[in-house]
Amino acid sequence: MSHSQNQHIVLASRPEGELAVTDFRLENTPMPVAADGEVLLETIFLSVDPYMRWWVRAEKSYNDPIEIGQVMVGGTVSRVRQSRHPDWREGDVVLAFSGWRRFALSDGSDLRRLSPMAAPPSTALHVLGMTGFTAYAGLCNIGKPKPGETVVVAAASGAVGSVVGQIARIRGARAVGITTGAEKLAYVKHQLRFDAVVDHKAADFAEQLAEACPDGIDVYFENVGGRVFDAVVPLLNTYARIPVCGLISQYDDAPNGGGVDRLPATMAQVMGKSLTVRGFIQTEFAGEQMADFLEEATRWIGEDKLRYREDIVRGLENAPGALTGLLKGRNFGKTIVQVGDL
Amino acid sequence: MSHSQNQHIVLASRPEGELAVTDFRLENTPMPVAADGEVLLETIFLSVDPYMRWWVRAEKSYNDPIEIGQVMVGGTVSRVRQSRHPDWREGDVVLAFSGWRRFALSDGSDLRRLSPMAAPPSTALHVLGMTGFTAYAGLCNIGKPKPGETVVVAAASGAVGSVVGQIARIRGARAVGITTGAEKLAYVKHQLRFDAVVDHKAADFAEQLAEACPDGIDVYFENVGGRVFDAVVPLLNTYARIPVCGLISQYDDAPNGGGVDRLPATMAQVMGKSLTVRGFIQTEFAGEQMADFLEEATRWIGEDKLRYREDIVRGLENAPGALTGLLKGRNFGKTIVQVGDL
Repeated sequence: MSHSQNQHIVLASRPEGELAVTDFRLENTPMPVAADGEVLLETIFLSVDPYMRWWVRAEKSYNDPIEIGQVMVGGTVSRVRQSRHPDWREGDVVLAFSGWRRFALSDGSDLRRLSPMAAPPSTALHVLGMTGFTAYAGLCNIGKPKPGETVVVAAASGAVGSVVGQIARIRGARAVGITTGAEKLAYVKHQLRFDAVVDHKAADFAEQLAEACPDGIDVYFENVGGRVFDAVVPLLNTYARIPVCGLISQYDDAPNGGGVDRLPATMAQVMGKSLTVRGFIQTEFAGEQMADFLEEATRWIGEDKLRYREDIVRGLENAPGALTGLLKGRNFGKTIVQVGDL
Repeated sequence: MSHSQNQHIVLASRPEGELAVTDFRLENTPMPVAADGEVLLETIFLSVDPYMRWWVRAEKSYNDPIEIGQVMVGGTVSRVRQSRHPDWREGDVVLAFSGWRRFALSDGSDLRRLSPMAAPPSTALHVLGMTGFTAYAGLCNIGKPKPGETVVVAAASGAVGSVVGQIARIRGARAVGITTGAEKLAYVKHQLRFDAVVDHKAADFAEQLAEACPDGIDVYFENVGGRVFDAVVPLLNTYARIPVCGLISQYDDAPNGGGVDRLPATMAQVMGKSLTVRGFIQTEFAGEQMADFLEEATRWIGEDKLRYREDIVRGLENAPGALTGLLKGRNFGKTIVQVGDL
């Protein structure tokens, strides 16, 4: 396409049940022009994340829903194409929040400059971004694993879980991952180098988890919810810590089989074992710790101590399909849509 | 009885469901004789506490269960009747851990000397002892109320709850108590001087609690469990802290009525509000903080900032009834069994 026109993707209809690519619409729009104090950004990479499913619901959750006809929002890695702002120059590569747009304007207040020489810029959307920092903040502030302790994390091949286990190992703890599927199990064990990995769809999952944690569990990083939790709780040690940052599986879980209220037994464990259960969102810690995290994690990537995997889809028009595929678990690694060239 | 014989109470049977006085048996035994390095103690006051329900369960919790035929354990205020230990003299009043016995031996290592002039010795079993320190440790280390914040505590007229609310007020926070019965409601409001008190048996309990907490709840000191928790959770503010030190209403293992699994909704609140839920036992903090606590709390009692109430039952033989009554909430104030005279 020529750069005399812009393109964006809007929410075309409110999804009923499963989200479909037809709930989105690509539109051509006039090319935006930077006013004084603004920069014109060209999107290179677009982040596609599970929580976007909640943004297109009618109900308010932790943000306002996206309206019909509104451009989809989302984090991007972008290049400054034109600057009328003193702090930014043409060619700067930045972390932005342009949404599903080819070109966008910004007053600069929501941008962070990236150093393409230090790490691939796309990493700012995951391992050197929000998901990586979520893992770091939850482990450092709540999990606090000591050398030799056992850290368990579910969705271990995912954007958060993969970083949790690798930082646990960097801190001298044992990392035990939970995932499913031969490819992901092998990836967690051999590429991410967790000490052990367990398949949560195995019939004897609870027994396998107990075997993988002979000294019990000191930190359970809760990012899925659901039945994994039931297998973890009996293995928790006294003073174990449970950072809670996601409960994905709970939302579509069928109601618990026996109609059993698991809260009293869980609270009895909290009391009897002096457990710490602590919910968090990474923004709580970002102001104080993001700079330290970026410095440490960039170094770990350079030293091959922190690995990641990207699942890149090319073309803005394919963003809706990337999102619906992610929601069905078809991705393997962080889903990114490449819109422009680096 | 003559002092040529001793008496103690043993666990006669493992309770099925509700604990009954018939699960205990009073036995006459020979009078113990102090060997070299030992002291003979006469029990004056015996502490009866909710967690004793845990000790008679078959399952191991944070201590080994009491065996059938074993003497019930428990804290006591005792007088040294005979000493063959250089550090202790006849007549010394001490905090001991004699259990449900009239006379007991000690090698002195588990004794703490009390100063009857500084405070009534029975206070070492509650406000200046384990329950008072439980309130202090849970508030100072986990609850951390800031001036102006709202602290809610159930069993507000009880040994722990009464101290929680009063220390919250000393720290500049608002104290809201939950209890039931006209007498206890009045006591919490007018004697303990809580800012508000709510009757958990009122039909509109949840609405009353919401009215008593117009700015939400910042600290919920969980020492009862059960349905009070359900009314508290929706009122919790972001970053609220929940020290968990007791779940009395759950101890008798009564299954939940509605058959609804409350765990997923509770975990969603933990995540959505960045809550901290932290179980604890006071022993975790006693080594570092007990001396400071005793100094502060003794001063607060002298300044009439910290009040307490004792519910004294006379006679060792009435200890089982005192415990079962306590578990049913029939006590009013700290339950103490007076075994001997001061």
